[in-house]
Amino acid sequence: MHEIFMKLAIQEAKKGQGNTYTNPLVGAVIVSENNVLSKGAHLEYGQAHAEKNAIDLCKTPEKLLNSTIYVTLEPCNHYGKQPPCTQLILDSGIKNVVIGQLDPNPLVSGKGVKALRDHGIRVMIGILEKEVRNLNKNYNYFFEKQRPYVSLKLAMSLDGKISLRKKRLQISQQEVFERVHEERDNYHAILVGSETILIDDPQLLSTKKTKFSPIRIVMDRRGRLLDNFKQTIFKDSSAPVLIFTEATEYSNQLPEHVEVISQSAVTVPDVLNELYKRNIQSVYVEGGSIIHDTFLASHCWDEIICYLAPVILGGDSLSSISSKRMSHSITKLKFVDLEQIGNEFRIVGRRV
Amino acid sequence: MHEIFMKLAIQEAKKGQGNTYTNPLVGAVIVSENNVLSKGAHLEYGQAHAEKNAIDLCKTPEKLLNSTIYVTLEPCNHYGKQPPCTQLILDSGIKNVVIGQLDPNPLVSGKGVKALRDHGIRVMIGILEKEVRNLNKNYNYFFEKQRPYVSLKLAMSLDGKISLRKKRLQISQQEVFERVHEERDNYHAILVGSETILIDDPQLLSTKKTKFSPIRIVMDRRGRLLDNFKQTIFKDSSAPVLIFTEATEYSNQLPEHVEVISQSAVTVPDVLNELYKRNIQSVYVEGGSIIHDTFLASHCWDEIICYLAPVILGGDSLSSISSKRMSHSITKLKFVDLEQIGNEFRIVGRRV
Repeated sequence: MHEIFMKLAIQEAKKGQGNTYTNPLVGAVIVSENNVLSKGAHLEYGQAHAEKNAIDLCKTPEKLLNSTIYVTLEPCNHYGKQPPCTQLILDSGIKNVVIGQLDPNPLVSGKGVKALRDHGIRVMIGILEKEVRNLNKNYNYFFEKQRPYVSLKLAMSLDGKISLRKKRLQISQQEVFERVHEERDNYHAILVGSETILIDDPQLLSTKKTKFSPIRIVMDRRGRLLDNFKQTIFKDSSAPVLIFTEATEYSNQLPEHVEVISQSAVTVPDVLNELYKRNIQSVYVEGGSIIHDTFLASHCWDEIICYLAPVILGGDSLSSISSKRMSHSITKLKFVDLEQIGNEFRIVGRRV
Repeated sequence: MHEIFMKLAIQEAKKGQGNTYTNPLVGAVIVSENNVLSKGAHLEYGQAHAEKNAIDLCKTPEKLLNSTIYVTLEPCNHYGKQPPCTQLILDSGIKNVVIGQLDPNPLVSGKGVKALRDHGIRVMIGILEKEVRNLNKNYNYFFEKQRPYVSLKLAMSLDGKISLRKKRLQISQQEVFERVHEERDNYHAILVGSETILIDDPQLLSTKKTKFSPIRIVMDRRGRLLDNFKQTIFKDSSAPVLIFTEATEYSNQLPEHVEVISQSAVTVPDVLNELYKRNIQSVYVEGGSIIHDTFLASHCWDEIICYLAPVILGGDSLSSISSKRMSHSITKLKFVDLEQIGNEFRIVGRRV
């Protein structure tokens, strides 16, 4: 029975999709004598938590006494933007709490369970844990590994090329183009190198179906973009822009949505560490080939999403994930997904 | 009804699979009053044709009078290794001939039909022509385009690389390795560059389940292999070896199974033209990357078979289909097949 109600809680949690960042998705279901009394989800960052919504939405509050709440994530025990859910549960008369997974955030993990047990609540942990963890893959990863989840995204020809030399070229067709825009919405940040900005001059926006447009990050070691800020990302202010650079001198006419972060060395670990401090839980790295190779060499990445187009470039055209770095090792992947999109394939490989 | 009997003839034809080269697969079915009297196939090069086998195998020859023969390919009208099938048909009393497709060989095309019609036989052409043509894709292609059908085969990583620099590396796992050996059996020749021989020193053999092992061809413009013939393909004589070279001086201690063809310029069209003269109807081009790019640039190729392995090489590793040639155009493909083999993918793209 526990699995059935936890499944309902998972379904409920998904109602917040895209609107809860930096919080995770959470769903809750309250059950008495095998009947569902109410359901609730965390629907939006800064708004009520799932437990509170479930309790508030219960039309027969008298039945809460001795009931059971199924909640996908450990209830919080601290005052943040909301009062602690543990207190609400105690006040409601609920006697049993069934939890999908503990909160991976080390600041709070286990504290909610302890507070509940200290007050005589029966707590069970780990029901459908795998499914529950999938709700918040990046959130879990972020706290457990203490860095954002990193996906390297390629759009390449069947011979592994991404463009002709020094020439803007869109390998993918419209359907994949749109899919990439949607996919960006699953991440908290999009990252590219300065070369991509100079050659392609992209907007780097998502479909904006959610409240949180991914932040646009550029690794611009030499500060090539910092002279005049004339590219599209500087003119379009729909999402913040972060420039990582080693340059120390640049125009101080920064557009309002742009921030420059000077580092003595712009390395992948340093960039990711800064993003971690800023609570950016996932990054979609769109290239170019040298940026991808820098991530590959740093080992700080998790999966590759490869869009394969039915074209061949050959000759001296630019190969995906490449640089002058001497490659001497092979990184193994596990193919975890394959999908046909229009005339192209989307292949996902994860590090093993 | 015609389609039903032609389908039987197609099934019959497949019995010769792998053993009829340089002849095509052919099947025949003889029918009288909607009853099948007998079936026959061309089973092996130099042996009886399908029509003769069907006629010979008929246990009730008296019923052949006024019967109908369904044959996938136009009956021959010339003395080759066998007497002309048109004559056997006339002699048997068969009155109707239903043909899948005309023989694409310009030396004989239409002549069988004419001979039959001149003798009062009713002839119908083009039943299930598409399926029938698929029986002998390369054979048809060869005569119609007057060159072999050319497949470029890649085995690459998810970032489009085929090896580390100057180092032997097998990207594919065992299952794909075996599949490639089987696939070679569908071709009359395997072609590689001298670099592949020098670095990988492969055997270049098929599974040898058929009577005709594909010929092993090496494009060795500078004659780098011709000093001492010490590589495996020179020691192993299970299949002939053809070396195309611009070198004019080389050791005359040629192993018996090896032939050297000197050309003033070893170009793809010249090589294919020589193969055409030798009745080699299909070529499986296994690389390396420069040889593949030479084929790409020549436009003399038909499809790409790409084995995609779950690994990443990055850095300065060698990209598939690449050279110093300035690439300025995009060649469009149509993905025609996708298959999972073990942990890898086999993707086939055909030129559009």
